[in-house]
Amino acid sequence: MPDPLGPPPSDPRPTEAETAALRDAIAQARAVAETGGMGIVAAVLSGGRVIAMRPNQVEESGDPSRHAEIVAMAAAAQALDRVDLSGATLVTTLQPCEMCLAAMRWAGISRLVFAARQEAVHPKYFQFGGLTLADFHAAADRGFVHLGGILEEEVIDLYADGQE
Amino acid sequence: MPDPLGPPPSDPRPTEAETAALRDAIAQARAVAETGGMGIVAAVLSGGRVIAMRPNQVEESGDPSRHAEIVAMAAAAQALDRVDLSGATLVTTLQPCEMCLAAMRWAGISRLVFAARQEAVHPKYFQFGGLTLADFHAAADRGFVHLGGILEEEVIDLYADGQE
Repeated sequence: MPDPLGPPPSDPRPTEAETAALRDAIAQARAVAETGGMGIVAAVLSGGRVIAMRPNQVEESGDPSRHAEIVAMAAAAQALDRVDLSGATLVTTLQPCEMCLAAMRWAGISRLVFAARQEAVHPKYFQFGGLTLADFHAAADRGFVHLGGILEEEVIDLYADGQE
Repeated sequence: MPDPLGPPPSDPRPTEAETAALRDAIAQARAVAETGGMGIVAAVLSGGRVIAMRPNQVEESGDPSRHAEIVAMAAAAQALDRVDLSGATLVTTLQPCEMCLAAMRWAGISRLVFAARQEAVHPKYFQFGGLTLADFHAAADRGFVHLGGILEEEVIDLYADGQE
């Protein structure tokens, strides 16, 4: 069993490392979108370091679950040789869908930083539109921190009308 | 683009094929549990035929998202050469967690048959215990059918205390 990753940042705002990772993810998402791909990118950080950053890979993998967050967490788990990513931060260009939010919790991640918020984007990015992130937060068996809308203005054009 | 799979069964109860697949999945889950593994098994059916049946593979893959349902849907997508599994039925020994339920919807699956219900099992199998399947059903942007508690008495001992 590897050592724990250490606690996540306690900052009530994104750290410099988290903001820098989000900016890189947005640049990568824009590059993917420009070549006709699904322009959503996620990263896993630990100790201020990016462990993995990955784009959505549903089409490439032929697997409907391979959203950017799922792929980035799988890559981080492989890099760190553990499925328990407690202490890490999940950073993503778009608020995680319900699948990815639950996957984050299965990985033990309790800190989430993202750009575009559900209420600012096309509804196609979510499956249970009647539930908000606040609803999930209230229903969670264990708490987590979510910091949304960070750098949103730098990426919202990709998701506002669902044309990324 | 492959042809559509055709509509799912409209039966208000599980079909014979669905019940048979669930019985096979329960037997496989029990066999996995007896060897110390995570005894949860899921299957994808189409046209009354089992396209894929898979156990949880989180430990084997080192990927925290590789629940039985995720793996079975990925295998079905590969077998059918499509990520859109609309028309298929998802069959599973345990009510899908929030991740797997959303993954089912991303795959376009609108018919779910499962054995052990959330209210009958240990809470560890869910991340957002304050939300029920009825809440997700009410919040879904597109409808789906869920038939739970089928053959529950044949498998509940695995999940009642979370010791499967």
